[in-house]
Amino acid sequence: MKPDGFNPSPPDAGVGDDIYALAERLFPICRSITGNGVRQTLDILSGHVGLERREVATGTQVFDWTVPREWNIRAARITGPDGRVIVDFADCNLHVVSYSAPFNGTLSLQELKRHIHTLPEQPELIPYRTSYYAETWGFCMAHNRLAELPDGLYRVEIDSEFKDGSLTYGEYLHRGLTDREFLLSAHICHPSLANDNCSGLALLATIARHLRSRRTRYSYRFLFAPGTIGSLAWLAHNEAGTGRIDHGLVVSCAGDAGGPTYKRSRRGDAYIDRAMAHVLSRESKATLLDFWPYGYDERQFCSPGFNLPVGMFQRSAFGTFPQYHTSADDLQFIRPEHLASSFRILMDVIDIVEGDWTPLNLFPKGEPQLGRRGLYAALGGETSTGLSSIALLWVLNLADGNHSLLSMAERSGLSFTEIAAAASLLAEHGLLADAAFATA
Amino acid sequence: MKPDGFNPSPPDAGVGDDIYALAERLFPICRSITGNGVRQTLDILSGHVGLERREVATGTQVFDWTVPREWNIRAARITGPDGRVIVDFADCNLHVVSYSAPFNGTLSLQELKRHIHTLPEQPELIPYRTSYYAETWGFCMAHNRLAELPDGLYRVEIDSEFKDGSLTYGEYLHRGLTDREFLLSAHICHPSLANDNCSGLALLATIARHLRSRRTRYSYRFLFAPGTIGSLAWLAHNEAGTGRIDHGLVVSCAGDAGGPTYKRSRRGDAYIDRAMAHVLSRESKATLLDFWPYGYDERQFCSPGFNLPVGMFQRSAFGTFPQYHTSADDLQFIRPEHLASSFRILMDVIDIVEGDWTPLNLFPKGEPQLGRRGLYAALGGETSTGLSSIALLWVLNLADGNHSLLSMAERSGLSFTEIAAAASLLAEHGLLADAAFATA
Amino acid sequence: MKPDGFNPSPPDAGVGDDIYALAERLFPICRSITGNGVRQTLDILSGHVGLERREVATGTQVFDWTVPREWNIRAARITGPDGRVIVDFADCNLHVVSYSAPFNGTLSLQELKRHIHTLPEQPELIPYRTSYYAETWGFCMAHNRLAELPDGLYRVEIDSEFKDGSLTYGEYLHRGLTDREFLLSAHICHPSLANDNCSGLALLATIARHLRSRRTRYSYRFLFAPGTIGSLAWLAHNEAGTGRIDHGLVVSCAGDAGGPTYKRSRRGDAYIDRAMAHVLSRESKATLLDFWPYGYDERQFCSPGFNLPVGMFQRSAFGTFPQYHTSADDLQFIRPEHLASSFRILMDVIDIVEGDWTPLNLFPKGEPQLGRRGLYAALGGETSTGLSSIALLWVLNLADGNHSLLSMAERSGLSFTEIAAAASLLAEHGLLADAAFATA
Repeated sequence: MKPDGFNPSPPDAGVGDDIYALAERLFPICRSITGNGVRQTLDILSGHVGLERREVATGTQVFDWTVPREWNIRAARITGPDGRVIVDFADCNLHVVSYSAPFNGTLSLQELKRHIHTLPEQPELIPYRTSYYAETWGFCMAHNRLAELPDGLYRVEIDSEFKDGSLTYGEYLHRGLTDREFLLSAHICHPSLANDNCSGLALLATIARHLRSRRTRYSYRFLFAPGTIGSLAWLAHNEAGTGRIDHGLVVSCAGDAGGPTYKRSRRGDAYIDRAMAHVLSRESKATLLDFWPYGYDERQFCSPGFNLPVGMFQRSAFGTFPQYHTSADDLQFIRPEHLASSFRILMDVIDIVEGDWTPLNLFPKGEPQLGRRGLYAALGGETSTGLSSIALLWVLNLADGNHSLLSMAERSGLSFTEIAAAASLLAEHGLLADAAFATA
Repeated sequence: MKPDGFNPSPPDAGVGDDIYALAERLFPICRSITGNGVRQTLDILSGHVGLERREVATGTQVFDWTVPREWNIRAARITGPDGRVIVDFADCNLHVVSYSAPFNGTLSLQELKRHIHTLPEQPELIPYRTSYYAETWGFCMAHNRLAELPDGLYRVEIDSEFKDGSLTYGEYLHRGLTDREFLLSAHICHPSLANDNCSGLALLATIARHLRSRRTRYSYRFLFAPGTIGSLAWLAHNEAGTGRIDHGLVVSCAGDAGGPTYKRSRRGDAYIDRAMAHVLSRESKATLLDFWPYGYDERQFCSPGFNLPVGMFQRSAFGTFPQYHTSADDLQFIRPEHLASSFRILMDVIDIVEGDWTPLNLFPKGEPQLGRRGLYAALGGETSTGLSSIALLWVLNLADGNHSLLSMAERSGLSFTEIAAAASLLAEHGLLADAAFATA
Repeated sequence: MKPDGFNPSPPDAGVGDDIYALAERLFPICRSITGNGVRQTLDILSGHVGLERREVATGTQVFDWTVPREWNIRAARITGPDGRVIVDFADCNLHVVSYSAPFNGTLSLQELKRHIHTLPEQPELIPYRTSYYAETWGFCMAHNRLAELPDGLYRVEIDSEFKDGSLTYGEYLHRGLTDREFLLSAHICHPSLANDNCSGLALLATIARHLRSRRTRYSYRFLFAPGTIGSLAWLAHNEAGTGRIDHGLVVSCAGDAGGPTYKRSRRGDAYIDRAMAHVLSRESKATLLDFWPYGYDERQFCSPGFNLPVGMFQRSAFGTFPQYHTSADDLQFIRPEHLASSFRILMDVIDIVEGDWTPLNLFPKGEPQLGRRGLYAALGGETSTGLSSIALLWVLNLADGNHSLLSMAERSGLSFTEIAAAASLLAEHGLLADAAFATA
């Protein structure tokens, strides 16, 4: 379907600051796979774009899994032999292992250590740990602080609770002209980790807000759900509708200085894989990775029973940067310019998905005479339209009904933007028809 | 179809000198896309091989184009304030922009300069310029000469004319045993540029003359036509017959020291693309390029409405050498040895097209016993026939009816010549049949 | 077909010594394409695994060939002018050209030299030469010895005979649960050359003995036949059965320090080609070669009339090492550790062929919850089962009925062993079914 002219996304001055400001607001909240932290986060995101929120009751079966009890935590601390507070959840929510059971007791240092997680090789950082499906408790702290603790009795208080409640996720559907969908998904279950994934949440909410005013062919579904169990709950609830998903991206770690990185869908040659490869071919440090079954929610979307065309976008690939899953993944680690770059990349992909069509050359025998239409200039120069002649010639040459604009960009080595602009211009001059209608 | 034995083209001592001598005769003529220069050129070529000439009247519609008025020029000069002739068409036909309108007048230096083309970065060279489809006039000269001109009034005389006449092209058809065609095309519209394209014209005429005495399977069509409008006129006139074209080459810039270069057809995997790649795999400095929609008349032959299997052969690729489209593309720039090399390459390709067939091993179970037929020698050595055993073994092994000789050459890494000689020898000994007939 | 658990071949301490000891016993025998040397060799091999022996009478037509007369030799020597024995077959059976006709006479040095073969560039080594299909006689000796010989008359005695007899080969069939076959073939026609091919004969006999006690899906056919004419005789006799051969390997030069080398079957993408490539991807110095029609009996198995999926395994590729076909290919040139490595490689391939199956994920929508089954551990760590989680995730992700375990190993980059163990474990936990039965 030929779109009404080619209208690439407008420039985005200041968008990096906007995304950063949103990530900053999300950062302090203690999120987990269930509980009020997720709800608070969805509240803030709803201030940007109206989310539909869904609560899935504890005990609900989702495929092979069961929604766990809801977990909330109010406070937690360790007090030392001298009465001084050693570790306090109020200082940093990474200090408590996520889904820690309530506890109140006094332990020897030796006993306590069995519940303490540190990073001996990054001794100043606090690790991020979870224990979702095995009931236990634990604290995380800097290895150097642990090493300084004297023998003696330590008082441990964890004011958390498990209850029959629900798992929460939010979604926003931008309705396009068709019900074919582009799924954009970010996990919402990590606490104070800026890149992983306040950055992804803020980026997707900002893209959603930008799309609101835009007339699109595709419908865009934004999903903010807890990792694994949240995406499974969404899939279970929307199983019949997954056939509408033509493209999808899982987004996380979108704000650091590395990458960009794209991990292909399980299919490996889905349209989204080609479109991302094309956009990233313009980035000097981009990395393309083949699918492997570890990572974020692409694991679920790409499980064999769904095999959806969903890839993953990141800047630095998860697990490859030293700040990953530590207290160093903080608000200094992400920068507005990197968030803006991620925004630009995803909007470029959306522009491809929106702007692609398959033209048919109406003068396919020989070249049409571009000169008398004011469309021809010396190669390397520009026409009066600002377009290089070579883009026009490529479009005319490949407009046999078998090449979409993206195919043309891939074969020519020109950017999708140049190809799309050339096709628009040629269509305006009556040289191209839309193959989708011309074949009737 | 198995040919009657394998008869590669005979050696070509002196052919480089012959081609050069012909190019030398073509060089002085002022050619353009119409006019008497083309006719004089065809007259000379007809001395080598009997051309059929065709005149296409001004105003004839060819696809999206219209044949322009015929242009001829008798003289042109600029006379300086002191009465001395500054620039004279009689000295070098590049001095006048091709298709310059007649003009007679006196201009200030400033006004004159708006009509002068130079090459500031190659200040001693005269550029080649055209203005086919926009009526104007202009001169080309060395930048250093222009810089020396004093202020004052300059007298400009261009004794050219436009008239309703015709566009002229010539063709020669060497009839083979079948009406399947190999098209060889060279543009005839450039004035005194030796490599681009006196070399191509002279090379093709010489190949045509060599083929005259040869019994071939294919029919060979040689086309000498003005660029773009000429090939379009030919295509329009022969539209129904283009389905007979199995192979094609556009030839230009065939005489300089660079390359050789082959630009693939739009199909990319046509037989001509494979055959040229095979021949050029024997050349140490060869370059293979994918099709792109700029260049010479392959643009028209490979337009989507025709999509003919036509590639382009050159030595240095057009636009990549500093002499390109300047007065430095003269008779010193092309050399007999490079023309001979180009001749050899094209004849090798013709030998493949002529000599290829698909053999069927009549003793397919195990190897036939070559020793008792006198066909076996130690590997690396030679049989009494001068052929290495490995060529015989490759042919026998791949003669399953699914491999042409070219496929065998590609897979084995041996030359087509070796493979073809081995197949002939095996056929003589009754070990091979022609798959084309054996399947009946 | 899912095998009953995955039972890779047990470790093979001492197997290198066993194979070496067997090669040592085979080494002294004078083998040729017919005669008692082959029978003695088969006698020794039968001590390891019960061979079925077959005699093919002189004059039998096998495809394009005829079984030659049987050749045997008792003694041969050259005595010098001074009565001293210069060369004696009893010292080294390479001294006599294989298939030398009987001879008794006295010759001048000059006449004698026409019957002497040496290696001027390896002047201390005796070459190996044959003359199977042209009746003549000859001796092989060190070039330096030949150079020392004084003029004079030399007495030559060759006590050999040709007779109507037979060509002999042996085979052993290990019957599996199905009659689909894996063919393993080694040539038996070389005299005292340790690597080429006492190593191959001893290796295959040892593999056969190891398989005897193993319940296999495939039937394994071991063929010990003279090169070319022997494999042709076998093919002629078993033509109808060749359709049962799903995999095959020709084995020679299996004991030196080079390689390993695998030469692909003519098909190039047969299962055996993929399995060998996978196993050799674990070897740091492995070389994979495309098929070419020279070498050992893969030439016959891969002739176009059979085109069997048979590759060739060697350590150093034939013809590439200086000891090849000389007296330096002796028992010092092969070592137990290299024979053990070759054994391990072939058993690994057999393990793949035996252990491969195509699983179907019974929980294909999302990941099944491995944690509550005790199957999940941190990536990079190990589960309680000793398996990395990533192997489990790969198997689940690709268990869509379109991926065999070998495909999974290829795509994941993990070893077949890891993938197979993961699949067994998942099947034990009820997460996988066998696609071969599940589709009904």
